[in-house]
Amino acid sequence: MTIYDISEKAGVSIATVSRVLNGSQSVSVRTRQKVLDVIEQCGYTPNAFARGLGLNTMKTIGIMCADSSDLYLAKAVYHIEQKLRSHGYDTLLCCTGYELDAKADSMNLLITKKVDGIILAGSNFVYEKEQDNRYIAEAAAQVPVMVLNAAIDTPNVYSVMSDDYTSMYKAAKEMLSGGTEDILYFYNSTSYSSMKKLSGFRAAVEESVRADSAPLIEYYQGAHEDIHAMVRHLRAVHDRGCRFQGVIAADDTLGLAAVKYASEMGYRIPEEFCVIGYNNSMLAYCCEPELTSIDNKLETLCEHLVATLFGILDGKEMPKKTVFSGEVIRRGTTRSLPPDTEQKKSI
Amino acid sequence: MTIYDISEKAGVSIATVSRVLNGSQSVSVRTRQKVLDVIEQCGYTPNAFARGLGLNTMKTIGIMCADSSDLYLAKAVYHIEQKLRSHGYDTLLCCTGYELDAKADSMNLLITKKVDGIILAGSNFVYEKEQDNRYIAEAAAQVPVMVLNAAIDTPNVYSVMSDDYTSMYKAAKEMLSGGTEDILYFYNSTSYSSMKKLSGFRAAVEESVRADSAPLIEYYQGAHEDIHAMVRHLRAVHDRGCRFQGVIAADDTLGLAAVKYASEMGYRIPEEFCVIGYNNSMLAYCCEPELTSIDNKLETLCEHLVATLFGILDGKEMPKKTVFSGEVIRRGTTRSLPPDTEQKKSI
Repeated sequence: MTIYDISEKAGVSIATVSRVLNGSQSVSVRTRQKVLDVIEQCGYTPNAFARGLGLNTMKTIGIMCADSSDLYLAKAVYHIEQKLRSHGYDTLLCCTGYELDAKADSMNLLITKKVDGIILAGSNFVYEKEQDNRYIAEAAAQVPVMVLNAAIDTPNVYSVMSDDYTSMYKAAKEMLSGGTEDILYFYNSTSYSSMKKLSGFRAAVEESVRADSAPLIEYYQGAHEDIHAMVRHLRAVHDRGCRFQGVIAADDTLGLAAVKYASEMGYRIPEEFCVIGYNNSMLAYCCEPELTSIDNKLETLCEHLVATLFGILDGKEMPKKTVFSGEVIRRGTTRSLPPDTEQKKSI
Repeated sequence: MTIYDISEKAGVSIATVSRVLNGSQSVSVRTRQKVLDVIEQCGYTPNAFARGLGLNTMKTIGIMCADSSDLYLAKAVYHIEQKLRSHGYDTLLCCTGYELDAKADSMNLLITKKVDGIILAGSNFVYEKEQDNRYIAEAAAQVPVMVLNAAIDTPNVYSVMSDDYTSMYKAAKEMLSGGTEDILYFYNSTSYSSMKKLSGFRAAVEESVRADSAPLIEYYQGAHEDIHAMVRHLRAVHDRGCRFQGVIAADDTLGLAAVKYASEMGYRIPEEFCVIGYNNSMLAYCCEPELTSIDNKLETLCEHLVATLFGILDGKEMPKKTVFSGEVIRRGTTRSLPPDTEQKKSI
């Protein structure tokens, strides 16, 4: 018996069930009674309702994160923990790695710990195949599950994300309009947000004047921080005859590797070679010239994710999906836009 | 009544008390009886003993970390969480910030959560003044406290650390013997390990041929990731007439800023300007030339820290302090050593 079953049996939304349990005044007497009847019939009180029923909860939220030492995910964990703490909640951290089985195990573990909610920090938790996301649906039947940077259409799962598709589309459009025609897309993940980014890139390139040529897309599968291996990968692409005068990278580490590659090849940046990274992390300041990168407003996302979670726990109706726009932060690895395109930049 | 009080009243070590509670065979019948008598007289079972007495524990360890989004601390949290998890323990993460009051509050909070132990990830938890470390001593009276990269002489507090003094001493010696005489030490923290690093630098410079001139030491107190502000700081040092041909930095971010500063000043690296960073993080690969940096073996430290903690929880006698050597990883920002000094490098 889960919150989902109760809402189904009572014929009301999960939020309504939640409101009833919180004694909210915005539910009609009839609806309230219907929900309480169903709960009584089942004779069962799921963990997630404990707070609503005035029972003690652990006031603990589980954060799952593939790798909390990743520059981007570390920031996400930090912002989320700070905001949970300010609500008086504890953070149980699970670093799961990138394997599905390990993620599912951690999820089950958190459920047995009677956490009040689970936050999936990073879009790598959401898979393309529906059956691979079953572990999320099962957990969401017990407690609200919040997903950062990915969305799935499952009851009691809420998403807060950056519009990765449009950000990448804009980045590719900008680089194309700056005169760089052969752009290589360089990525290292097949997560939900990675696929959105790739689609955005693809759309922009396919709309371009050179629509006859296929988009250049390169997948790097080495270690996430091995910049040297990334540079070797780009060299290998060049050595097999593929020519590109720009790289759009799915994260700043890959972008930084592209800057390094261009320097080693003797290309002048941005005159002969352009690079755009993603995440607008401190790495963007580390190379010479500094890296143009997309700011996906991580802190804002984390803030809304936690606010949404507490809204749900308080029995409020909260949006299933909240999407924020990203922004291209222009630095030395891209050319200034021609004046006539500048005004079109917020496509 | 704390583990410390019991050991004092029984006239035995904390480890002995712990061994008694774990039913270890290595305690004499007489000692065992003495400890059990004291515990009975007090009529009280502290949390930390629950496991030893066969009661259920939360199997949870609290990790305190000033800022888990810091590149170095994020790695520490990650390694520690992984190792705790492999022992079947959960991690309660507290990002405390750098203020003493907030650290003390988090510590008290973790104690009320009945954690089995507390890990302080980062030497910034240990202060120079003894009274500022009282919050650690108070927590250690309840549960074992493990400190990464700092040591204090308090019962039930255990340290695993890198020999920061010697690492910095060696780094400075190397740069001096490479022919760089005016070295600026650039740091941004007055934590325990920072003070050790500074002492190591100072000792090497004071031993040098130019002992008449005072060591050049510069404290940066801006934001931890603001590389531009660090570069401006170095320019300000130059502009007030201070001349230096090398920088030894207390972390890689500061080191990277020094490389950027040198490039902006038009100095050739390493011919005219040398830099050594600290932590051997991925930032060392991000600049051009790549940064020589000190590897302080973070993963090894975390591994030993967790192993020590579980030794203590199992009632074994464990070292109060474990110190590992660091290593200078030479890259493009330092000159090759003259052949005659090469063999002296492991001073």
